[in-house]
Amino acid sequence: MPNNRFVTKVFPSVSRAERWTRNSHESGVLWLTGLSGAGKSTLAMNVSRILFEQGIHTYVLDGDNLRTGLNADLGFSSSDRTENIRRAAEVAETLADSGAIVFAAFISPMVADRKLASQIIKSNFHEVYVKASLFSCEQRDIKGLYRLARAGTIQNFTGVSALYETPEKASLIIDTDHSTISQSTNDLLHFVKRNFLRPDDADDIHGVVW
Amino acid sequence: MPNNRFVTKVFPSVSRAERWTRNSHESGVLWLTGLSGAGKSTLAMNVSRILFEQGIHTYVLDGDNLRTGLNADLGFSSSDRTENIRRAAEVAETLADSGAIVFAAFISPMVADRKLASQIIKSNFHEVYVKASLFSCEQRDIKGLYRLARAGTIQNFTGVSALYETPEKASLIIDTDHSTISQSTNDLLHFVKRNFLRPDDADDIHGVVW
Repeated sequence: MPNNRFVTKVFPSVSRAERWTRNSHESGVLWLTGLSGAGKSTLAMNVSRILFEQGIHTYVLDGDNLRTGLNADLGFSSSDRTENIRRAAEVAETLADSGAIVFAAFISPMVADRKLASQIIKSNFHEVYVKASLFSCEQRDIKGLYRLARAGTIQNFTGVSALYETPEKASLIIDTDHSTISQSTNDLLHFVKRNFLRPDDADDIHGVVW
Repeated sequence: MPNNRFVTKVFPSVSRAERWTRNSHESGVLWLTGLSGAGKSTLAMNVSRILFEQGIHTYVLDGDNLRTGLNADLGFSSSDRTENIRRAAEVAETLADSGAIVFAAFISPMVADRKLASQIIKSNFHEVYVKASLFSCEQRDIKGLYRLARAGTIQNFTGVSALYETPEKASLIIDTDHSTISQSTNDLLHFVKRNFLRPDDADDIHGVVW
């Protein structure tokens, strides 16, 4: 670690609390963890869209997208995965500080890395386990990655050649093996509503008909 | 560079254009460059506050703050400074994508690094040169850093023991040697107004009386 003892922290001219008042909702991070193909990004995108249309400030931070930009220098070794999650959490925290309800969709297979993320996020961190069996994810194989992982073309692939540590105390579990996209979306939507909106406003947030 | 060819980009469910419409203003990045003590953070904080109070979504990304979080693993070597700016620009771009007018206050002494930042920011990047002579900054020495740099306690200090490459074609130059904080704040405020707000709304944005 470099010596940054001469770095002076600057206090913001707009506080997080002021942003919450302005937006009429709190901000924070929904950390979606689960296997590739479990439905993390789909759920994040769906709920973000519904909330946006109802005037809520949301943003989706997606593992794949971050790896084409901020984390393009990182691979899939254990230490690179940790650094990937550390940076993702820092960006999620910054977005939350700016007033957004952030959906962070990252496989984030290790308990320790998710714990690190929870420590970086200063308020309203919620771990959401998007649960699906390896069998289901591999059958779906929307991106064709499981096939490549089985063939050995992709190394360190979570579920196939790298471990996924199941969350033991997630704030919310969404089981996409046993509920439809519509049901799963509504479950996440109502969780956000309960945790980020004032009771009166939460009543006005509707689910979606598919 | 690791091989990230299996990373699939996910398209957002809310576009930047939709956020602009919702917010009634565009988003983007004001990249404030200049010596330590030139006034970058002060200006960013002032203008951000004024705009917030007038309903505009802004956020300040500050070099010192980033170095206590996302970039806490980086020092002040040439390559670490480049990486510092690369990551800062990626975060600024993400915040701009979320709809914010971002004030990025970074010494960012090298032309090449600022160019890299401008390439990472996809739209509405504006380089703002917060200009002050080394003499002034050293006289102000608000953080006491110049004294420590002259004593050799701090190494690689821009202006003293590391180079600052003056911007040659900044979008805006704010000379804090020759204008007051109030004047400088209003100059930046009106620049933002001209570039990010619709003409009708821009007329309603007022400066501040000090």
